[in-house]
Amino acid sequence: MAQSSLEPFSEGKGGTQVAVPAIAITMGDPAGVGPEIIVKACRALAPRLDDGSLRLTVLGSIAALHRAAAVLGATLPAVETTVGRAGAVPLEMIDVDPDRPDVPVGDVSAAGGNYAFLAVKAGVDLALAGRVDAIVTAPLNKEALNKAGHAYAGHTDMLADLTGATGSVMMLAHEGMRVSHVSTHVPLSAVPGLLTAERLRRVIDLTAEALEELGIARPRIAVAALNPHAGEGGIFGREDIDVTTPVVADYRARGREVEGPVPGDTVFVKLHGGRYDAVVAMYHDQGHIPVKLLGFRTDPETGAWQALNGVNVTLGLPIIRTSVDHGTAFDIAGTGTANEESLIEAIDYALTIAANRRAREAGGAARRA
Amino acid sequence: MAQSSLEPFSEGKGGTQVAVPAIAITMGDPAGVGPEIIVKACRALAPRLDDGSLRLTVLGSIAALHRAAAVLGATLPAVETTVGRAGAVPLEMIDVDPDRPDVPVGDVSAAGGNYAFLAVKAGVDLALAGRVDAIVTAPLNKEALNKAGHAYAGHTDMLADLTGATGSVMMLAHEGMRVSHVSTHVPLSAVPGLLTAERLRRVIDLTAEALEELGIARPRIAVAALNPHAGEGGIFGREDIDVTTPVVADYRARGREVEGPVPGDTVFVKLHGGRYDAVVAMYHDQGHIPVKLLGFRTDPETGAWQALNGVNVTLGLPIIRTSVDHGTAFDIAGTGTANEESLIEAIDYALTIAANRRAREAGGAARRA
Repeated sequence: MAQSSLEPFSEGKGGTQVAVPAIAITMGDPAGVGPEIIVKACRALAPRLDDGSLRLTVLGSIAALHRAAAVLGATLPAVETTVGRAGAVPLEMIDVDPDRPDVPVGDVSAAGGNYAFLAVKAGVDLALAGRVDAIVTAPLNKEALNKAGHAYAGHTDMLADLTGATGSVMMLAHEGMRVSHVSTHVPLSAVPGLLTAERLRRVIDLTAEALEELGIARPRIAVAALNPHAGEGGIFGREDIDVTTPVVADYRARGREVEGPVPGDTVFVKLHGGRYDAVVAMYHDQGHIPVKLLGFRTDPETGAWQALNGVNVTLGLPIIRTSVDHGTAFDIAGTGTANEESLIEAIDYALTIAANRRAREAGGAARRA
Repeated sequence: MAQSSLEPFSEGKGGTQVAVPAIAITMGDPAGVGPEIIVKACRALAPRLDDGSLRLTVLGSIAALHRAAAVLGATLPAVETTVGRAGAVPLEMIDVDPDRPDVPVGDVSAAGGNYAFLAVKAGVDLALAGRVDAIVTAPLNKEALNKAGHAYAGHTDMLADLTGATGSVMMLAHEGMRVSHVSTHVPLSAVPGLLTAERLRRVIDLTAEALEELGIARPRIAVAALNPHAGEGGIFGREDIDVTTPVVADYRARGREVEGPVPGDTVFVKLHGGRYDAVVAMYHDQGHIPVKLLGFRTDPETGAWQALNGVNVTLGLPIIRTSVDHGTAFDIAGTGTANEESLIEAIDYALTIAANRRAREAGGAARRA
């Protein structure tokens, strides 16, 4: 890994005080691919760390970071610090568990689950205190989390609990494919009942706000239909007619560029063709299938993952949070083969949102992402 | 359009009698894009019609065919004939309505719906009599069909009625993306209840048979999960555990290459990467979204459809039937801009299946598609 200079970096080159965009990266479960994708991402981002345009604080297990760096033959120029003293250098790392337990690679363990929780907690604290602009999370393992006594289904409810926010929305994004979800981790049988006018309005509003924070001044949003062919006039289900149609009509009456219900099998083709800036999907697979199909790629010979592009953005929190959109991949963890593209994309998404939010709050014009 | 030679073509060049692969194309609703994609496909296929490697019988409105040819500036070398005398020349057309009513372009009409029905009926008759190897259907309009007094939801139930087959399966295919469906045109709320062990076995069996008829000797099939993350151990629904898992285990115990339940958001990435030959999808959008996303394309400027690739194959009928996977597109019908790629792909799929079925029935080795 290229050495980053470690001088103080809060002053701009001209001597004027500028805010350096700061991101906290949470390692997730140290037994997974988190440590290695973080080391790889830091290596790729070294020029930006060096030139003072980015600051990263890595939260997790320092031993796991060093182990990953060794596997990758990389020198880790991160400076060890504490949450209380975070923010002094471009690249720093904080061990969030004072006991620093060993976490075996590739295994479900309470120690790994506890690290994942403590990293997110520290990241939320830094973000709520305004000491980082956003948190970017690497994947955790649900079973390990629960073994450690943290009874969460995953990041989403943990973040809701830690920030006090309810009704957050998952947006999955890769290049022009931005898809937010009315429902996510529920049985398919529960999906129709979760489509209410209130929830749909919240998802549309948060999606529009996120698009504006990505620099899109007048967002064009399509709402995907719940039923095939949008219910074909009610023959294949009435939810699209009874719930979605009047909500969309109301937005349009107020001059908003919202369209729908658009049948699921063509709405993502149109999104890919640039007709919309985002789609509101009704459920997990409807939204995840198209984004991952374009962002993920496997090796035809070995079946191994070659690319894992895509970012998960949680909308509706008091902090900015993005995430990789893949899992811990315990099966390949520790080999150094995991791909860091999604993590870098997640960092860049967070930076764009932070910059536009700051500009908007300062009354500035939104910058095109 | 290039002139096709009109000599008898049932004799091979060496003088030996060979079966020329014969396809009946049903025009669907003459008010839609059917006539123009048929004229364009015949033009593109002229070399194969000329060299005696293909025979096409177009069933529908001859006036509509001539109108489409005029718009396209094409000469239509098709010979007019009747169902009873079909099979004499490489390219022939049959008007299936003895009254030959006028069908206004781009409008829903009983005349158009009646033509669509009569064309499919004539095609089924020719196929059941063994006088064509397969039927390839252009799109119809459901409302027009019902206006004409044919109370069907679409091609699927019409074909079931006309052939006496029940429990057919829709397979959507584009290049390596082959996806068959446990359920299709039903409300999303009805989907979980339609996943039964019996239906899943039928879909897997018909999919495997179709793959073999596409020349794949040892088909690898993945069954998509119904619930997100395949239910995450039952937290997001139990159908994947209770229904799919034991069915897949049984196939595997019998040495079959069947995998699943594989989470919906990655199974199509793996299919695209060549890990499987087909995926069994649980419902319409789950299967249609990935195939259309890769096969369809819109113009970024105008939003118009640029490519509509993909074939719909109906499995479980006593005849071979493939179809375009797009609709009548009344909005652009008559302009000559509709794309014929899906129709040609559907013809080629039908030819491949027919050739392999014939080879298999003759005890020959399956040819790789």
